[in-house]
Amino acid sequence: MSSIYGKNVKVSLFGESHGDGIGVVIDGLPAGIELDMEQIAKHMQRRAPGNAAWATARKEPDVPQILSGVYQGRTTGTPLAAIIRNTNTRSGDYCQFTETPRPGHADITGSIRYDGFNDPRGGGHFSGRITAPLTFAGAVCLQALAARGIRVHARIYELAGVKDAFVGDAMYPISVADKPFHVVDDVQGDEMQHKIAEAHAHGDSVGGIVECVATGVPAGVGSPFFDTVEGCLAQMMFAIPAVKGVEFGKGFAVAESCGSENNDSPIFVDGTLTRKSNNAGGIDGGITNGMPIVMRCAFKPTPSIYSKQDTVNLTTKENVELEIQGRHDPCIVPRAVPVVESAMAIVLLDLLG
Amino acid sequence: MSSIYGKNVKVSLFGESHGDGIGVVIDGLPAGIELDMEQIAKHMQRRAPGNAAWATARKEPDVPQILSGVYQGRTTGTPLAAIIRNTNTRSGDYCQFTETPRPGHADITGSIRYDGFNDPRGGGHFSGRITAPLTFAGAVCLQALAARGIRVHARIYELAGVKDAFVGDAMYPISVADKPFHVVDDVQGDEMQHKIAEAHAHGDSVGGIVECVATGVPAGVGSPFFDTVEGCLAQMMFAIPAVKGVEFGKGFAVAESCGSENNDSPIFVDGTLTRKSNNAGGIDGGITNGMPIVMRCAFKPTPSIYSKQDTVNLTTKENVELEIQGRHDPCIVPRAVPVVESAMAIVLLDLLG
Amino acid sequence: MSSIYGKNVKVSLFGESHGDGIGVVIDGLPAGIELDMEQIAKHMQRRAPGNAAWATARKEPDVPQILSGVYQGRTTGTPLAAIIRNTNTRSGDYCQFTETPRPGHADITGSIRYDGFNDPRGGGHFSGRITAPLTFAGAVCLQALAARGIRVHARIYELAGVKDAFVGDAMYPISVADKPFHVVDDVQGDEMQHKIAEAHAHGDSVGGIVECVATGVPAGVGSPFFDTVEGCLAQMMFAIPAVKGVEFGKGFAVAESCGSENNDSPIFVDGTLTRKSNNAGGIDGGITNGMPIVMRCAFKPTPSIYSKQDTVNLTTKENVELEIQGRHDPCIVPRAVPVVESAMAIVLLDLLG
Amino acid sequence: MSSIYGKNVKVSLFGESHGDGIGVVIDGLPAGIELDMEQIAKHMQRRAPGNAAWATARKEPDVPQILSGVYQGRTTGTPLAAIIRNTNTRSGDYCQFTETPRPGHADITGSIRYDGFNDPRGGGHFSGRITAPLTFAGAVCLQALAARGIRVHARIYELAGVKDAFVGDAMYPISVADKPFHVVDDVQGDEMQHKIAEAHAHGDSVGGIVECVATGVPAGVGSPFFDTVEGCLAQMMFAIPAVKGVEFGKGFAVAESCGSENNDSPIFVDGTLTRKSNNAGGIDGGITNGMPIVMRCAFKPTPSIYSKQDTVNLTTKENVELEIQGRHDPCIVPRAVPVVESAMAIVLLDLLG
Repeated sequence: MSSIYGKNVKVSLFGESHGDGIGVVIDGLPAGIELDMEQIAKHMQRRAPGNAAWATARKEPDVPQILSGVYQGRTTGTPLAAIIRNTNTRSGDYCQFTETPRPGHADITGSIRYDGFNDPRGGGHFSGRITAPLTFAGAVCLQALAARGIRVHARIYELAGVKDAFVGDAMYPISVADKPFHVVDDVQGDEMQHKIAEAHAHGDSVGGIVECVATGVPAGVGSPFFDTVEGCLAQMMFAIPAVKGVEFGKGFAVAESCGSENNDSPIFVDGTLTRKSNNAGGIDGGITNGMPIVMRCAFKPTPSIYSKQDTVNLTTKENVELEIQGRHDPCIVPRAVPVVESAMAIVLLDLLG
Repeated sequence: MSSIYGKNVKVSLFGESHGDGIGVVIDGLPAGIELDMEQIAKHMQRRAPGNAAWATARKEPDVPQILSGVYQGRTTGTPLAAIIRNTNTRSGDYCQFTETPRPGHADITGSIRYDGFNDPRGGGHFSGRITAPLTFAGAVCLQALAARGIRVHARIYELAGVKDAFVGDAMYPISVADKPFHVVDDVQGDEMQHKIAEAHAHGDSVGGIVECVATGVPAGVGSPFFDTVEGCLAQMMFAIPAVKGVEFGKGFAVAESCGSENNDSPIFVDGTLTRKSNNAGGIDGGITNGMPIVMRCAFKPTPSIYSKQDTVNLTTKENVELEIQGRHDPCIVPRAVPVVESAMAIVLLDLLG
Repeated sequence: MSSIYGKNVKVSLFGESHGDGIGVVIDGLPAGIELDMEQIAKHMQRRAPGNAAWATARKEPDVPQILSGVYQGRTTGTPLAAIIRNTNTRSGDYCQFTETPRPGHADITGSIRYDGFNDPRGGGHFSGRITAPLTFAGAVCLQALAARGIRVHARIYELAGVKDAFVGDAMYPISVADKPFHVVDDVQGDEMQHKIAEAHAHGDSVGGIVECVATGVPAGVGSPFFDTVEGCLAQMMFAIPAVKGVEFGKGFAVAESCGSENNDSPIFVDGTLTRKSNNAGGIDGGITNGMPIVMRCAFKPTPSIYSKQDTVNLTTKENVELEIQGRHDPCIVPRAVPVVESAMAIVLLDLLG
Repeated sequence: MSSIYGKNVKVSLFGESHGDGIGVVIDGLPAGIELDMEQIAKHMQRRAPGNAAWATARKEPDVPQILSGVYQGRTTGTPLAAIIRNTNTRSGDYCQFTETPRPGHADITGSIRYDGFNDPRGGGHFSGRITAPLTFAGAVCLQALAARGIRVHARIYELAGVKDAFVGDAMYPISVADKPFHVVDDVQGDEMQHKIAEAHAHGDSVGGIVECVATGVPAGVGSPFFDTVEGCLAQMMFAIPAVKGVEFGKGFAVAESCGSENNDSPIFVDGTLTRKSNNAGGIDGGITNGMPIVMRCAFKPTPSIYSKQDTVNLTTKENVELEIQGRHDPCIVPRAVPVVESAMAIVLLDLLG
């Protein structure tokens, strides 16, 4: 797959952080979807840098230009291509990293993978910036899903050890998209922002967990063995830089649970089949059961930190110290929220066929 | 993909728990791999039921017969097909579950997915029994990997809240394959087995976590964005019934970590490039960095429990109670250890091309 | 793809001519298709060797055994696996060909492709015998198509320069499946059989063309650019050993045509949209237009001939002569007719999704 | 696949004839290929309209702008995206065709396929204009192949019944790329051009055959059954609008051949293994044998002709007459020559992995 995802709805990402442009081709979209460009811009704005204290100071308009696949405001069904021009790049910031790689980045692995020919400026194709076209593609897919009654909402579930409020199954879907900081409990959100500011003050960074919930997905989507809903979503989520874990429903907590607690008993409520609990996160045997799909992704702390770090000089083969300059988020979790929504939307639309 | 996995090495699973046979076709294997059939049988034996107190009493020889793809003891490079005949089946055990579905199983979702035509006997194609041919395919891949110096070892990391010993990076690879119970610390292993026996006595079941480590994988394997090593492994792991979470390296713990701790600094030791830590689990930017690949999978408690459960009668549309008979593991984690090894082996061989 | 075909309906072939067994896994079949096993056997019988003067004397029952994917006489929707045991093999016939390769066969290329490890007996995985499971898979797909009103009929269009009767568009579908020799005009058929006998008498072989027509395929199937109906069918047809050309509608004759003749004008006849001609073979812009799909495949003469041929000795690196023994069809075209039908059926079912 | 082709080297086409832009993303290119942009421009110029009497008068610069995937003049290994802005479009020319479809075009099938939402202007995504980015992608692949000693050369083999000179196997590779009209025998070329002019004068169009030969491809490329070199090339060739037949080596002529003539005997010449003939077109058992790969594609006459044609009015459901205006090639074969070269180059690079 490489930079192309999907079977029915195929997403082909391209671009390097400091090249001429980045973008995406979406092939296999349903024809006739009316695109609300204002909604798309709003969705993308949530990912954009420069919007808050906790985000990088690098400001980019990130307005995608659609080249094809839309006619008279609706998708044509043929490939939709959109490009975003790179502006406001400062390549000088990154020149040194081919020689003295940044810990926690793909500087070394990318160079090995591409025999030293990959574009090193700003992380090149490995840059988190490439999630902008992914987010755009997801914004389009979200509208196609909405037309079928499917909603996808993510929030910050935990950040630097601070947890957002517990949200019971009955409360889904909760959209926190309109809040500037995507949590249910604003007091906890303030504490999270305080943690980010603190890390920033120390030249450090923090990680967290994003939870994403889809409602309205019909039962019967997904297949055993290799097209399970969990597997397809996970493959996509690990495409988002910094994700190191993905879980569904009760997730890793199942390990300390017993069957009599963990099984979600089916129950008829007013003649409608539902479940007494949703520990499975909406998925049994890899197939949706009609309950909300509940997924969580763990994001590592931003690897770019300002404090001094040990690294190597690949030319001299010496161990050296590195101080990173430039503009970097002390925590990418807040900006990752719409990215996770987009990523889930692409997968669900692809699975729906 | 459905029941076919892979790009270079393709694995095509088939079979239902109580049908005539189950099996696998492996297409794209390297030609000329000498197969040690005894090793393969030994590997499969670790997954086989009926071997211990904690496993189901259903005994099946599970000896795969190779139909093609091997000539004079070596892989031919053309598809390797192997079948396992089903014997010792008791279909009567399962007849009722199309009407009164078992909580935590795919009885409902499978029926919706296949319009009621799927084979319901013993879970049909959703049965954990289909991991037998997957394990066989992995045993073949493990030998192809071993020929390149790559080893894959899994162990029980946690079971019913009991953790195995902490294993530092320096200690990899540790093989516990020859132990009857796959843990490093046998005292902890005894405690785990006690928990299983306890659950069994209460008609209940318990879950756990399997950790799997690959050593010897060269740096530079994997690709951004959608062929990350994490994403490919995760897609495969969720194919194993009961897996609800997958994480790499520090995994979900990154959420409470800060960048200065979590970054793995590169370092030259005696002229060799390595890392000071392995929080990334051997993968940076989706690409292997040469350190051990460290992955953990969370397994839910076996959904089949003997105590009474709430469920529905789909015909009468009433809420009813269900008591499951038959033979079921109170914990599948011990038998899942070789399955996880096999699953990882398939993915790694596929990624190596 | 290698030995696995398809996107929605995936066909995974395995086996070697003289190994333990050959077979196929079909993943993604619609659930609930009632299988008429007698019809399937009849369809396969048309491909089977030993049925006529023009066919190899090697007799094999070729009865596939279904291992999975069928429950109570209907497809389950999960993978359908079927195996055919190899019997009546005479491996000794082929031993020499790794050293002195047969002209026109894959003896050399197969050995290079698989580093000398491929099974050389009877052509191994390259054997025309592997079309038996392909034919079986097609027989299943034909029944799934028939349930939607789609019919696929092939015939011998030309053999050793002798052409079958011209069949105008209005006459489709003509089934010649029940005739022992699959032509419309039996006089021409007799002449063809005479040519085969003549070639056989001279220790030689002859080629021909199979035409295959599908009716009832709805308009709108296929996609630009790389999923054109022509492209998908052609990829599949070249999987049939000996096919060296594929054409649609007027085919290569378009090269000598002019636009005013070749364009198929749309026309309303009694309120129904049809075409005045079908030079396009039912496909415009890669997408079906509702007219019969018309395809022709050119088959080369059987490469195994009894007369003396020049070849090389790969060990001594000398030019030598070769006389092939064993049992070989002097013309495979008659037996290829049901194979082409099967191959088209698989592709159409896959395209229908 | 739809508008995305390939397994290792993936080509994702986008754009509509009269939209904002067209282009291509190429994922999986080898890293480090030095791109000669002048050569690429020259190759694309051969496809460009407006260059000769026989081509449409529509002039477009067709200069692709590379947005990503190239750094310091070399491929980075990450996706290479290139866009071509559409200029000089006259949408008015095509407005009527949604109501009164042009015979021989995808006006009807495209509308059915995309529920009436496809962009109808200039054929939209079905336009031959989308072969411009395909040709660009091929130009890049041709340079990657050239670095491995592989050359791909096409020529007009036949046009309106006029054949180019016979070219024996020994004469390959012959490049006629530098000639304004791509034939070996210029006298025949003049006759072909005369035929085009004649058709043009009558408001008609003519078809032809392009032959394409690749030399330097190592033996052992391709796989049975579904990744045969023939099948992969054919799937791609039918992506080129107007192709209705594809053949290899002796092609359809095998049908009138006998085995003793058609078999290509292996022979050692000065210690090098070659073949006495190349009727197989360089491919045995779907795998390259080291001889030149020889392929021919039949192109139908341009469906857009100026003389009056029968068609329908889809709104009124009446049979009507149509006179097409606008700018159209009376024969697309000359401009198709570099497109076929490009298409073959993409497939070969993909197969080489």
